[in-house]
Amino acid sequence: MAILGENRYGKAEVRVVHVDRGRQPHAISDFNVSVSLAGDLRQTHLSGANDQVLPTDTQKNTVYAFAQRLGCVEPEVLALALARHFVEGRTSITRARVQVDSYGWTAIGPHSLVRSGGEIRTVTVVHDEQSGSWVLGGLRELTLLNTTDSEFWGFARDEYTTLADTTNRMLATSVEAQWRFRTADCDWAAAHQQARQALIGAFVDTYSYSLQQSLYAMGSRVLAEVPELCEVQLTLPNKHHFLVDLSPFGQPNDNEVYLAADRPYGLIEGQVLAEDAPPAGPAWS
Amino acid sequence: MAILGENRYGKAEVRVVHVDRGRQPHAISDFNVSVSLAGDLRQTHLSGANDQVLPTDTQKNTVYAFAQRLGCVEPEVLALALARHFVEGRTSITRARVQVDSYGWTAIGPHSLVRSGGEIRTVTVVHDEQSGSWVLGGLRELTLLNTTDSEFWGFARDEYTTLADTTNRMLATSVEAQWRFRTADCDWAAAHQQARQALIGAFVDTYSYSLQQSLYAMGSRVLAEVPELCEVQLTLPNKHHFLVDLSPFGQPNDNEVYLAADRPYGLIEGQVLAEDAPPAGPAWS
Amino acid sequence: MAILGENRYGKAEVRVVHVDRGRQPHAISDFNVSVSLAGDLRQTHLSGANDQVLPTDTQKNTVYAFAQRLGCVEPEVLALALARHFVEGRTSITRARVQVDSYGWTAIGPHSLVRSGGEIRTVTVVHDEQSGSWVLGGLRELTLLNTTDSEFWGFARDEYTTLADTTNRMLATSVEAQWRFRTADCDWAAAHQQARQALIGAFVDTYSYSLQQSLYAMGSRVLAEVPELCEVQLTLPNKHHFLVDLSPFGQPNDNEVYLAADRPYGLIEGQVLAEDAPPAGPAWS
Amino acid sequence: MAILGENRYGKAEVRVVHVDRGRQPHAISDFNVSVSLAGDLRQTHLSGANDQVLPTDTQKNTVYAFAQRLGCVEPEVLALALARHFVEGRTSITRARVQVDSYGWTAIGPHSLVRSGGEIRTVTVVHDEQSGSWVLGGLRELTLLNTTDSEFWGFARDEYTTLADTTNRMLATSVEAQWRFRTADCDWAAAHQQARQALIGAFVDTYSYSLQQSLYAMGSRVLAEVPELCEVQLTLPNKHHFLVDLSPFGQPNDNEVYLAADRPYGLIEGQVLAEDAPPAGPAWS
Repeated sequence: MAILGENRYGKAEVRVVHVDRGRQPHAISDFNVSVSLAGDLRQTHLSGANDQVLPTDTQKNTVYAFAQRLGCVEPEVLALALARHFVEGRTSITRARVQVDSYGWTAIGPHSLVRSGGEIRTVTVVHDEQSGSWVLGGLRELTLLNTTDSEFWGFARDEYTTLADTTNRMLATSVEAQWRFRTADCDWAAAHQQARQALIGAFVDTYSYSLQQSLYAMGSRVLAEVPELCEVQLTLPNKHHFLVDLSPFGQPNDNEVYLAADRPYGLIEGQVLAEDAPPAGPAWS
Repeated sequence: MAILGENRYGKAEVRVVHVDRGRQPHAISDFNVSVSLAGDLRQTHLSGANDQVLPTDTQKNTVYAFAQRLGCVEPEVLALALARHFVEGRTSITRARVQVDSYGWTAIGPHSLVRSGGEIRTVTVVHDEQSGSWVLGGLRELTLLNTTDSEFWGFARDEYTTLADTTNRMLATSVEAQWRFRTADCDWAAAHQQARQALIGAFVDTYSYSLQQSLYAMGSRVLAEVPELCEVQLTLPNKHHFLVDLSPFGQPNDNEVYLAADRPYGLIEGQVLAEDAPPAGPAWS
Repeated sequence: MAILGENRYGKAEVRVVHVDRGRQPHAISDFNVSVSLAGDLRQTHLSGANDQVLPTDTQKNTVYAFAQRLGCVEPEVLALALARHFVEGRTSITRARVQVDSYGWTAIGPHSLVRSGGEIRTVTVVHDEQSGSWVLGGLRELTLLNTTDSEFWGFARDEYTTLADTTNRMLATSVEAQWRFRTADCDWAAAHQQARQALIGAFVDTYSYSLQQSLYAMGSRVLAEVPELCEVQLTLPNKHHFLVDLSPFGQPNDNEVYLAADRPYGLIEGQVLAEDAPPAGPAWS
Repeated sequence: MAILGENRYGKAEVRVVHVDRGRQPHAISDFNVSVSLAGDLRQTHLSGANDQVLPTDTQKNTVYAFAQRLGCVEPEVLALALARHFVEGRTSITRARVQVDSYGWTAIGPHSLVRSGGEIRTVTVVHDEQSGSWVLGGLRELTLLNTTDSEFWGFARDEYTTLADTTNRMLATSVEAQWRFRTADCDWAAAHQQARQALIGAFVDTYSYSLQQSLYAMGSRVLAEVPELCEVQLTLPNKHHFLVDLSPFGQPNDNEVYLAADRPYGLIEGQVLAEDAPPAGPAWS
């Protein structure tokens, strides 16, 4: 007989745009909200009895209703309100996870805006019946590049190693970062801005001997500059730029012309913690 | 002072195609291989000293070298060999994860093939210095649809519920599944085929009152039919098909014409375990 | 003063699924329909007066209404009916283009289906008030590979040429083809199947000295085998497979292990016509 | 006997990054270059004789060699030089088309940059043996939104029309634009900047009764403000934002909370010409 293990369900990618016409210029929040609920959901799996299942359609409706009621708020505020609502409203639901992707827009007129670019701000809130609310902030698709101040040498070698040492390479990455808050009550906008600036600042300032070194510098800087945070997880693809060999054509290439490669790519993942970081509970679940 | 936590690094998405010209018709394996290594990698993070860092470029070379040496093998065989190589070859590396996506091709001539479709076979091998080898098989982008034998009613309701009961709906999903082997030595091709058929068979045969019920039936069927497996994890998006209201045009729509929606979508995730499933160790890490 | 030139408008990507429950097993058609209308649309551009503008929302409704009324038909039939409707129904509209992408499904039970794969069947119908109906069939994302019987040598060389001659290479492509019908009344399903088989057959059978040669063989074969057609346009990316150099590791690589590259790729485009092909009119507009 | 019609071939998506270390801060150009050549290419199609075929691999090499030789130039300059090179260098090639996508980066340190966002600057140069050089500038994925000053009413109605008039809607689009230069010698950077600002300015300033009206205003403004241009082609998807009905929950929704829809979408395409625009020749081929 098979045993039902961990499970959850919800509505993913509810696209909700809120316009605040009270501000000058008009402001919008542009969110992609995903809800996932866990709890006593055995019966729907085993027999198809759905009396404990709040429809994902209802979850979608709830996102829109809360977006109207709360107004143009930071994504953390919406996520916290939704996660608590689902857990507090239903005895069968013991944990809710709400993820919000937030897309940036820049005002270009009293009621006009332009999308700010590819970077996405991310929020994940887990509200647990027992342990309360957990908040992760973050971002992804922040693409950074240093044209120099990056070396890579002295690495381990084996019979499959052909890579040469380099004392001057391009270093580029598309940052995906998540950071854990110590608190569920914070100046969310300011914290996001500070963490983002810390990531960028550390990438720019680090004379790097490995992307791992840059990763640790970035995580450490975030923790140093945003005391509300206790943990950072970073995923950094090494977006390789290979110097093109132009010698067959009698041309020099003094760190000038590069091939930007797609695949394969290095992938560096790491976690940086404050010394006094409390346990993460279900934050990353 | 910040603490370095969990970390790993590797080369992602090495695209390797192996042609077996000894078979008639010619056969190919078409893999996308990602390697990730963990161990004593503190120094590269803290100071940029790389003497414990086997370059990701070397990992890429190793994938190609092993692909040649092993020949046209099942993806599990390549992944096991690679994962063990990286751990056994270097004292600083204590755990390796190798993921292989495998794309299917069908022979259409003595040396001609056509891509079989969107479905992808997946393999993840974790080899740990202490606990040995762990193998996960799986697939994704297997898109299934039942035109009937699906109901959804009797669900929980709250003030945001507007969904009506239905006793006849379309049920469609794009299956993402991973299953854990009890063993690191198996007829991998046969096991994959049996697990895939079990997933499909259970989806087809289940008169479904919820996608959760189908999920549990699918996981249970896999475990019942493939004794080498002890655990299945399933991620099933509910690809909604909404009946279009044609009454404004005076036309009937008796479960005939549907709008296939993109977003939002329901998302059902669950784990099914054999009663005697051993602990998973680092298999899912 | 600026002049308004060519213009058109419509609703793109209407996703409509039709279920035919009268057949055993149940069949579905799974279409993505795009409508584009042209005619006397000056006023909406110049002053915003919309009295000649049938809303794109109405076009969407029309797609669903026609899908129900026509039943489970070939995509050409739906596209022809829609294109004629929009032109015949409104004096301001003089030309309609309707494009249908059709996704394949395979029955796996009396009311169950599985998506057949990545290949997409395409239809474009242009109905013009003056010149009548024009039909293009086609497909895309049909990925073919020959492991041998492909050479490339004797090519032009200049100071930037480093490529070596080869008398044995992999040849792979993802076929995008469109073919023009001589008629607007045809056994559409049979013609599609024949044209598709001709493309595949010619790719398989051609001992190829260039992808251009394969392209011409494919186009010619389609015209030879499907007399209802008078023109074929093909877009063939050369999906490069580069032999990996394993000599640094002391390993052979006798046309065995390849790197499947993403970018850049060769791109071969060509048109093949029947000798007696009538003019194309607005078919490709 | 089948006839070979129009044909061309080339290397697509050559990713080339040029670093200018002479400037402070360091600047980069980040291009995706595609080359396509046409001329007397019959033999490679008919018999596989390749003596008139300059390999696409050579074309790739040429892109890198020219990128080094020209230095950090505007994309139009690189495209013109490449297109002329291929036509002037080979009697068999009578026309070359070179397309360049250019990705923006912003300096954030003396040798550090951040990707500016999703918007892409586009260049297409056609150099024809007989008619000389033709230059198209442009951009795509510039996403704009007006929260108000958009109405849509008074439109044509038929039996499938259910849309209600609206005097206040969100208007959002992702601009894809191409403009034709009168000249092959120009301050390319300034012209691009002026055209881009004209597009944005016209979108922002137009009180819009239809997206077609905005399109014409945008095209006209570009021509009025950039005298080097004679033609603009615009493709504007109508990125629908639907007001969510919150009345089932007893909540108001006074143009506040919207569902951002994916598919289907309106698609508005149009061309705006200067009164004295010269013929376009092969510019758009």
